[in-house]
Amino acid sequence: MDVTTELYPRERLDRVREAADRAGLGAVLLTPGPDLRYVTGYDAHQLERLTCLVVPASGDPFLVVPRLELPAAQASPAGRLDVEMVPWDETDDPYALVASRLPRGIAKVAVADRMWAVMALRFRAALPGAEQVPAGGVMRELRMRKSPAEIAALREAGAAIDRVHRRVPELLKPGRTEREVGRDIADAIIAEGHATVEFVIVGSGPNGANPHAELSDRVIRPGEPIVVDIGGAMPSGYCSDSTRNYCIGEPPAEYRAYYRVLQEAQQAACDAVRPGVTPESVDAAARDIIAAAGYGEHFFHRTGHGIGLEAHEDPYIVAGNTEPLEPGMAFSVEPGIYPGPHGARIEDIVVCTDDGCERLNTSPRDLIVVD
Amino acid sequence: MDVTTELYPRERLDRVREAADRAGLGAVLLTPGPDLRYVTGYDAHQLERLTCLVVPASGDPFLVVPRLELPAAQASPAGRLDVEMVPWDETDDPYALVASRLPRGIAKVAVADRMWAVMALRFRAALPGAEQVPAGGVMRELRMRKSPAEIAALREAGAAIDRVHRRVPELLKPGRTEREVGRDIADAIIAEGHATVEFVIVGSGPNGANPHAELSDRVIRPGEPIVVDIGGAMPSGYCSDSTRNYCIGEPPAEYRAYYRVLQEAQQAACDAVRPGVTPESVDAAARDIIAAAGYGEHFFHRTGHGIGLEAHEDPYIVAGNTEPLEPGMAFSVEPGIYPGPHGARIEDIVVCTDDGCERLNTSPRDLIVVD
Repeated sequence: MDVTTELYPRERLDRVREAADRAGLGAVLLTPGPDLRYVTGYDAHQLERLTCLVVPASGDPFLVVPRLELPAAQASPAGRLDVEMVPWDETDDPYALVASRLPRGIAKVAVADRMWAVMALRFRAALPGAEQVPAGGVMRELRMRKSPAEIAALREAGAAIDRVHRRVPELLKPGRTEREVGRDIADAIIAEGHATVEFVIVGSGPNGANPHAELSDRVIRPGEPIVVDIGGAMPSGYCSDSTRNYCIGEPPAEYRAYYRVLQEAQQAACDAVRPGVTPESVDAAARDIIAAAGYGEHFFHRTGHGIGLEAHEDPYIVAGNTEPLEPGMAFSVEPGIYPGPHGARIEDIVVCTDDGCERLNTSPRDLIVVD
Repeated sequence: MDVTTELYPRERLDRVREAADRAGLGAVLLTPGPDLRYVTGYDAHQLERLTCLVVPASGDPFLVVPRLELPAAQASPAGRLDVEMVPWDETDDPYALVASRLPRGIAKVAVADRMWAVMALRFRAALPGAEQVPAGGVMRELRMRKSPAEIAALREAGAAIDRVHRRVPELLKPGRTEREVGRDIADAIIAEGHATVEFVIVGSGPNGANPHAELSDRVIRPGEPIVVDIGGAMPSGYCSDSTRNYCIGEPPAEYRAYYRVLQEAQQAACDAVRPGVTPESVDAAARDIIAAAGYGEHFFHRTGHGIGLEAHEDPYIVAGNTEPLEPGMAFSVEPGIYPGPHGARIEDIVVCTDDGCERLNTSPRDLIVVD
């Protein structure tokens, strides 16, 4: 089995073209980023020189690429696709080049959500009659429902970050700072198989009450709960993301009280996941339990986010998202309670299955007390 | 001396507002990236949740920020500026929030060059009457001319990458692969003071003839020239970038021949740098020497790129760029000759001074022969 072909099957180009046609788009323009990688497997650098996969609704797709990047593009998984590569030289105008190869009078084009605005505006000038819309409209439909190979890649990522969490207790010693522990965790994220570290949060004591705390020089003290929220991207491109909670010695009694509520809420949200259920009802499953226990005001973020080639992508598990879950959708379930002077969050990546939910993180969710 | 205040002075916000006013812009919208960092010092994460500094041509600037990121924004250098922070909650529409705080009927807004297209399109919908232009038009005028503090930061970055190059010979052993050497270089980039590794090219033999070669598992052999092009970003945010050439043992005679031409060309380009000279004439200074020696077709990229908070930014040293150099402009001078089955490139970062050029890289430019 060719892993690249499994993960990035050739027919994705056809799926994009068909979706573009259905959406009334003349073409889809994908610059380096997760959309380009999803369609071709090419993990191109985002540079000031334009690289762009052009998928016309009718006609053959082509990849415009700076001549300097041509060897890398050819050596990438995109090289095995039957896609013409169109190199451009340093003094060429690649936007005019794209326009010259598209049919005249295109009314609407989609640009990659993460395309740099300066590039989108150059395309607007080169294709003055074409309304621009975000490519996410068609790409999310494809990317939200993970294939078995993608789920396998996410499962592998989940197992890797679980192994990192199992190493965290040995790193937590009184007197060490968040930053010192964070550096060791970053090393472990790579050592356990990730290609890149995406984020490392080590929120001790009051910093644990800030969901997006930066690593600080704060010394970790016994009796203070610690939120450890970590993730990376695997060589496959697929991301991990898991949060567990630690304490050197026994935490305060009031922490134990809300931690029990949080565990119940996280379990309830996972139990709510199945096809046909809305993301907002998964959010509510966690939120209602936390609110009923009197901590509602201390849970002020959404319950989760989709995950795949991006650490955060559709579907978002948030009030207002009423688009029903389907098998293959993968996302985080991560309620938190942050009353201060400490806080807690429990996060697993889950996949919606035919009749429920598979958790891709299985390291213990109880508070982990380190001696 | 407060380094943050020196590097990110408060008056930049006024400079942006004045430049916006002169350019007929109703507002400048800066999402996370080098423009936002340049203006405020805030090195914000680029997330799907909108963070945006809004600088109206008239009225006070404000920073729209997801409530989760508010503590990080307040703790950043932006916290010392007199800028209102406007947090938004998970179910708010931050684009509508920005629009509601701007005067009605704005005809033109600038969006950060690196803003995600999906965000620019959301702004277009929220401000339907406003034409969008790239913020680079006003930001480049400010960012291209480095302040003394910025030049000091670039000098520090140059010295750090020079120290890495001085360590490269000990890493080059016959039998090691490019990837192994590259990993050690990446570690050295961090050990010598950078915050992040931006790129590591170790192009041995034929890979040296590809200017943007990826690290490979190719084993480095004696007698094969090696192009080592490396850079990172310092904690200040300012970038390094320098290329040197190595060989284990003696290289082929024909390599020695074109390497002398390359050294002469790189020197000539540096000698050409002074206020009032055009980037294209600096490019030509190197290119003419290489062409006269018969290697013209083997130098197929521009001579350089600006550098600062971005590894590649204005000014580009390329044919067609006729905007005269001014004191404080910082850029690479990096001609190359790639005839195959090997190649060479020599790269220094230079700053245009009042009467010439200062090189920020000073490690030896001769071919470095490793025993």
